[in-house]
Amino acid sequence: MPFELPIASRIRKSPYFDRTVAEGATALSVYNHMYMPMSYGDPEGEYWRLIDGVSMWDVAGERQVQLKGPDAAKLAQMLAPRDVAKIRTGVGVYAPLSDQKGRLLNDPILLKLDEDRFWLSIADNDMLYWSQGIALGARLDVEVTEPDVSPLAIQGPKAFDVAAAIFGDWVRDLKHFHFRETEIAGIPVAVQRSGWSHQGGIEIYLMDGTKGGQLWDIVREAGQPFDIAPGTPNATERVESDLLSWGSDTWPEANALEVGLGKFVNLKMAPDFIGKTALQRIADTGPARRRRGLFIEGAPLDRAEDHWPVLHDGWQVGVATTAVWSLRLERNIAICLIASDVPEDAALFVQTPEGLRDATLTSLPFCKPGRPESW
Amino acid sequence: MPFELPIASRIRKSPYFDRTVAEGATALSVYNHMYMPMSYGDPEGEYWRLIDGVSMWDVAGERQVQLKGPDAAKLAQMLAPRDVAKIRTGVGVYAPLSDQKGRLLNDPILLKLDEDRFWLSIADNDMLYWSQGIALGARLDVEVTEPDVSPLAIQGPKAFDVAAAIFGDWVRDLKHFHFRETEIAGIPVAVQRSGWSHQGGIEIYLMDGTKGGQLWDIVREAGQPFDIAPGTPNATERVESDLLSWGSDTWPEANALEVGLGKFVNLKMAPDFIGKTALQRIADTGPARRRRGLFIEGAPLDRAEDHWPVLHDGWQVGVATTAVWSLRLERNIAICLIASDVPEDAALFVQTPEGLRDATLTSLPFCKPGRPESW
Repeated sequence: MPFELPIASRIRKSPYFDRTVAEGATALSVYNHMYMPMSYGDPEGEYWRLIDGVSMWDVAGERQVQLKGPDAAKLAQMLAPRDVAKIRTGVGVYAPLSDQKGRLLNDPILLKLDEDRFWLSIADNDMLYWSQGIALGARLDVEVTEPDVSPLAIQGPKAFDVAAAIFGDWVRDLKHFHFRETEIAGIPVAVQRSGWSHQGGIEIYLMDGTKGGQLWDIVREAGQPFDIAPGTPNATERVESDLLSWGSDTWPEANALEVGLGKFVNLKMAPDFIGKTALQRIADTGPARRRRGLFIEGAPLDRAEDHWPVLHDGWQVGVATTAVWSLRLERNIAICLIASDVPEDAALFVQTPEGLRDATLTSLPFCKPGRPESW
Repeated sequence: MPFELPIASRIRKSPYFDRTVAEGATALSVYNHMYMPMSYGDPEGEYWRLIDGVSMWDVAGERQVQLKGPDAAKLAQMLAPRDVAKIRTGVGVYAPLSDQKGRLLNDPILLKLDEDRFWLSIADNDMLYWSQGIALGARLDVEVTEPDVSPLAIQGPKAFDVAAAIFGDWVRDLKHFHFRETEIAGIPVAVQRSGWSHQGGIEIYLMDGTKGGQLWDIVREAGQPFDIAPGTPNATERVESDLLSWGSDTWPEANALEVGLGKFVNLKMAPDFIGKTALQRIADTGPARRRRGLFIEGAPLDRAEDHWPVLHDGWQVGVATTAVWSLRLERNIAICLIASDVPEDAALFVQTPEGLRDATLTSLPFCKPGRPESW
């Protein structure tokens, strides 16, 4: 029995909300206190359009936390495990945020817009208040706000054809996470090579919430020759591609190192950041768990609604954090957090709603971009 | 067309989740990153049970932020506009939190469990990170955590009969927002006279998330003689009773004084708190808006999904933040924020999805507890 999600003023509507409803959104969730489309009623069609063609997503719920002022860089450096002084304007970096105990708080992209202005493009929790609280407690001279910025993603192998038709061929030359501020039909935007899939594409950061419908229509029309249609962040594709879903693949005590984000945490640099000491301690002994792929045998399982225990020799040794039926591999697959001492070839069991299933570890990602026949 | 809310591990399940599904919850929303029932499919029946009888609600999404340690009281005083030193153990106070600019961040109950331990029982945003950030930035000696605490509400005129059957007659003597820690069938709980209705009742703060089903069953069984059934926080009743819904009746720039929470903000006391200076400045000139009731004429309107503009002499002078059809008054009513200089007897218009409607201001609350015939 599906549950209804009532629409109420308590939860914000995205600037694209009316368009997504008109386009036939059937399922919504809530992300950063904002409704976000989760389906247009054709899961397989939406999946294959992302793999083969081009899809447009309302991801306005991916909100920005803006740090602006004389101490903006100083605050960014307190928060982010990257060498902030080395980031150039127009560049974004993946920056898993930790608290002082090394617990993973969020995994935003940190964008540098100017010497004294940064955005954290965040997953679903209020890093606005974390950033504001630290700035206030430490008496930093910085304004921490949520600006009027709402991303619209264009994803899939034809995404750059659509983006080039709108912005020009320069978008094809953007490097990963690099961005440029520009205008389209008088609408202020920033265009970044990014997006929560591995099929390639851009995110358009709309900087005027009153122009959401207009921007949606521009993308829709430019995408027409490429058979664009609305889609949503895709759980199947992201598990196949090994993208972290903060909150799904993590838990309150998780740390960046064990969930596989170690390469985005610079413990060797000189600048200090919140959680560095705690993470260094974990790195010294090695994290107790590691992130791996998991094949789960048997008939197709419904997408997991929960973490599933992973067993070895009768003991729980890990969790399958998100299990899906892979449409490209035609197997049940899952992201898995598993005790570091479990052998790679161990015979495992997963406790699914349909009973115990045989399972084996595998490397990540499960899939490269595109169809298997192209790999 | 109702929207479906998918269930995913990204959003937490309440300790009562399985029971609420088994009881036939039809609509859910998301509150503090947790699924929360919004309907069991019989809105009128659920409403009248709250007015006439007794209803039980999964409000586990009302999470706690625990401040514990030598500086817990100091941090509580930084956050809360109340004289924290004067709060006795076992007492809760309503404490609207503001940022340094006087913007209303949240409207929790602050509970004092011990000299060095407090809870903020919060509305839907991450005051955990606000509190942690301030503590960290200001180098306070305090642990800020989200404890394993999940409220279950019993509300309605027969709520104390049910509560007394479970805990004993002492619960009838609890004063408003006072609480006591106790056990029932070995389950650790705190019992407080509170709850988000004006029909009276208690909230049971379950302090062991593994015992949710067991506690649910205890309440269900004790309530049987009183015809208890599951319900949810009720939008109609709360508008009739003038309870603030943070996020519905507020907006990012709103301050506690204009939304009607002035009497819970102690500007005269000696202790400082975050936002005091800014709020004092607003109090000195008087807030620009005030919270009033609004009667909206004409046929029953569907519950508002948005803020509706309120017009006077062709100008927008306010917003109807939440409009509902009052089942007790049989009129359309709304909570309204209106410019302070608009006369009480002004002829107003409200821009509803069904066009302009005549409207008039009125005092709050719209209704006393119980049926109109008892008033």
